[in-house]
Amino acid sequence: MTTSEQHPNLIQVLDFVDSHRQAFVDDLFQLLRIPSVSADSAFADDMCRAADWLVSHFREMGLAVELIETAGHPIVYAESPPVEGAPVALVYGHYDVQPPDPSDKWITPPFEPTVRDGNVYARGACDDKGQMLTHVKSLQSWLKSSGKLPLQVKLVIEGEEEVGSEHLGSFLADNTEKLACDCVVISDTSQFAPGVPAITYGLRGIAYFELHLTGPNRDLHSGVFGGGVTNPANALCKMLAALVDEEGKIRLPGFYDDVTSLTDREREEWQALPFDQQEFENQLDVDGVTGEAGFTTLERRWARPSLDINGMTSGYQGEGAKTVLPTRASAKFSFRLVPDQDPAKVTAALRAFLEPLVPPGITMELVEYHGAAGIAFPLESPYLEAAANAIETGFEARPVFMREGGSIPIVNQFHQRLGAEVLLLGWGQNDDNLHSPNEKFSLIDFHRGVRASAALWHELASLAQGQ
Amino acid sequence: MTTSEQHPNLIQVLDFVDSHRQAFVDDLFQLLRIPSVSADSAFADDMCRAADWLVSHFREMGLAVELIETAGHPIVYAESPPVEGAPVALVYGHYDVQPPDPSDKWITPPFEPTVRDGNVYARGACDDKGQMLTHVKSLQSWLKSSGKLPLQVKLVIEGEEEVGSEHLGSFLADNTEKLACDCVVISDTSQFAPGVPAITYGLRGIAYFELHLTGPNRDLHSGVFGGGVTNPANALCKMLAALVDEEGKIRLPGFYDDVTSLTDREREEWQALPFDQQEFENQLDVDGVTGEAGFTTLERRWARPSLDINGMTSGYQGEGAKTVLPTRASAKFSFRLVPDQDPAKVTAALRAFLEPLVPPGITMELVEYHGAAGIAFPLESPYLEAAANAIETGFEARPVFMREGGSIPIVNQFHQRLGAEVLLLGWGQNDDNLHSPNEKFSLIDFHRGVRASAALWHELASLAQGQ
Repeated sequence: MTTSEQHPNLIQVLDFVDSHRQAFVDDLFQLLRIPSVSADSAFADDMCRAADWLVSHFREMGLAVELIETAGHPIVYAESPPVEGAPVALVYGHYDVQPPDPSDKWITPPFEPTVRDGNVYARGACDDKGQMLTHVKSLQSWLKSSGKLPLQVKLVIEGEEEVGSEHLGSFLADNTEKLACDCVVISDTSQFAPGVPAITYGLRGIAYFELHLTGPNRDLHSGVFGGGVTNPANALCKMLAALVDEEGKIRLPGFYDDVTSLTDREREEWQALPFDQQEFENQLDVDGVTGEAGFTTLERRWARPSLDINGMTSGYQGEGAKTVLPTRASAKFSFRLVPDQDPAKVTAALRAFLEPLVPPGITMELVEYHGAAGIAFPLESPYLEAAANAIETGFEARPVFMREGGSIPIVNQFHQRLGAEVLLLGWGQNDDNLHSPNEKFSLIDFHRGVRASAALWHELASLAQGQ
Repeated sequence: MTTSEQHPNLIQVLDFVDSHRQAFVDDLFQLLRIPSVSADSAFADDMCRAADWLVSHFREMGLAVELIETAGHPIVYAESPPVEGAPVALVYGHYDVQPPDPSDKWITPPFEPTVRDGNVYARGACDDKGQMLTHVKSLQSWLKSSGKLPLQVKLVIEGEEEVGSEHLGSFLADNTEKLACDCVVISDTSQFAPGVPAITYGLRGIAYFELHLTGPNRDLHSGVFGGGVTNPANALCKMLAALVDEEGKIRLPGFYDDVTSLTDREREEWQALPFDQQEFENQLDVDGVTGEAGFTTLERRWARPSLDINGMTSGYQGEGAKTVLPTRASAKFSFRLVPDQDPAKVTAALRAFLEPLVPPGITMELVEYHGAAGIAFPLESPYLEAAANAIETGFEARPVFMREGGSIPIVNQFHQRLGAEVLLLGWGQNDDNLHSPNEKFSLIDFHRGVRASAALWHELASLAQGQ
């Protein structure tokens, strides 16, 4: 039991949460029954219904609400009144869901929430209606039981997360003052494992490229020309192989200059995680792994840069043998970046590295796709500490501090546009079948999430008062 | 003028050839009008008509003829009587042709021989009806003008060359005594350039492989897993790049042990060829070439082993970016081999080289496709000298001695099954559009080819008498 649980206001709020557990589930089920599939225009009316549901909900809670139209699906914005001396938190979530396809693989209909083994099965149960609603319900609990919130909360619930958040960026850019906040709270990730809640405090960035090498102006007979003409597929292998050394280090000059090292505390935290290397390999059916020397698998995936070829194509790919010296060879590949690497700097270093490697007889075209910086908030951040306390209240377990190897573009957006720290508080599980049939969400975790969120508002408010 | 031209019999024969120039062209046109497309069963009757045309022709010439049925298209076999003290020559050719597709690209119909600018345009004009018929017409000229041949000649004219010569191997194997000969004459190649007739005295061999590397049991998210799991596409590039060093040498241990060096004479002969490196690069639209250090382009293509990746495939190959760590990566690649490299030895060395390079987390499957040894007859061979003299008689130009970078499986077959030296005497040009629309053959070269062939029988016969 943390100290926060002893605070009279919070005790009252948590009691409210506990006594309205079934009512909150009923509300969740209402929202899950609306098939708000953003990718399919056949569901356009349902998208509006889902947005309207949120608008009424927020209005009924006494928040100031706006339905903000975009060229795509609307953004629902709500806020509570400012609280003098307390920080401002912004909740981000999304009311759109993935298409249910393949629909015939669902045990029960995707938009008819059904409970089995303590989980609710429905499209959007976890991603993100269930997780997002934990914050809505915690705010409602505060407002109903205590009459007001201990800090100002703003909510941005968009309808285009599953289709690329196309209009979120300009909304943030155009409303930096309105959206000004100290921290952003997002629950759209997972716990580390069942019973092991997690705060994700870092993400890797990315720099994605496509390399085209062109040799002779047509496919040649590899018998007639082989050995006398530079083969672009041979050149491609050689150039890509040159990017990584025997120790698994990327050979671009200066590549590691801006890499922030892991702190001792981070390495210790991760060593303590219930991660079983053998189990990891078994699940992937591999007899071992390789990677950057001197780092564990979690360190390599979460906090070290890497290079992966994502696709390769050249010459004859059908059955059997064809003696062709191909005119062209291409590869898609991407670096995962970590703080404080700059994608633009990596791109320049890559180009400078590859150009001298292009052999006579080959022309190179290097296409740049998206780049995003890695991001990591300091473990010592008071917001992280506040969130950890709140999660302990809600889940009765201390959360672990983890990072993610992938990028979440909206996190970069919020951080860059609003200068706010982003708290990724995941209530889901890794096997919740996001984007797959039979998506689920644990109803116990839904309840715990509401409790944790309720405690979070208290913790954040106390934090500011104490600072 | 060579001495052979002064021989009374040959003079008589060459006079016959000259005076029947148009009659021979008429015969060629008869054969070209038969659409003997071996690949398409719709032309089965025409295949029989073409074979029958040859049978009647040989019979009319007084040769012993057999139509040998196979499970595919028949082989036409003919022979003249043995000549005491003279060598035995075997002529190989084929009466089948490539499909004319795309038919609409022909300026005149593919099976209606048409003369333009001194060339006959028709499918099979050069490959191989026109070239093959030079030998038939030279034999006819000898028989008509001199009553007999100065040596025994056997002819094997098959109908499946364009579909892989499936039944030729067993025919050779089953008839080694009947087909016994000192040299095999094949006219199914090209001159080095217009006005530069050539004898091809060597071919490279091949060892073709497909390498499959399998990593994790499914495609993974390259953000979540990248750096922590061995990527099979990365591994493929690294393993293939390791096969060739900075000097363009293949790094398999022992790979060069059995490579026969070029003789000084060969290097000199090739240096003297009208080969323009700049022109070669211009035609391929490349700004240079790479290859094994210390060798010219022709040496690299004709007499040095090489490694070419023929195809590669892995991961995402569509438009745009996909952050996938692929489960699998594959490449097709082949070594070109030269005398006296053994494909089986190369295969063993390759496997031994690659196996230790397979990184943890990857399983390798190496598929062996066809292997064939390289072949080269010594430039000092009396048969080559005889052929060179004959070509000088027919073409009024001394032929150059070249090799080819590709393999011609039937050459290996004849050499291995019958132990005979193979003379590749090409009358075609590099732009004769073999296998393409508007195939052509120079009628002057047809006539010169008949004269050269007529002289060849005399030269070979003299050769034996002189030995």
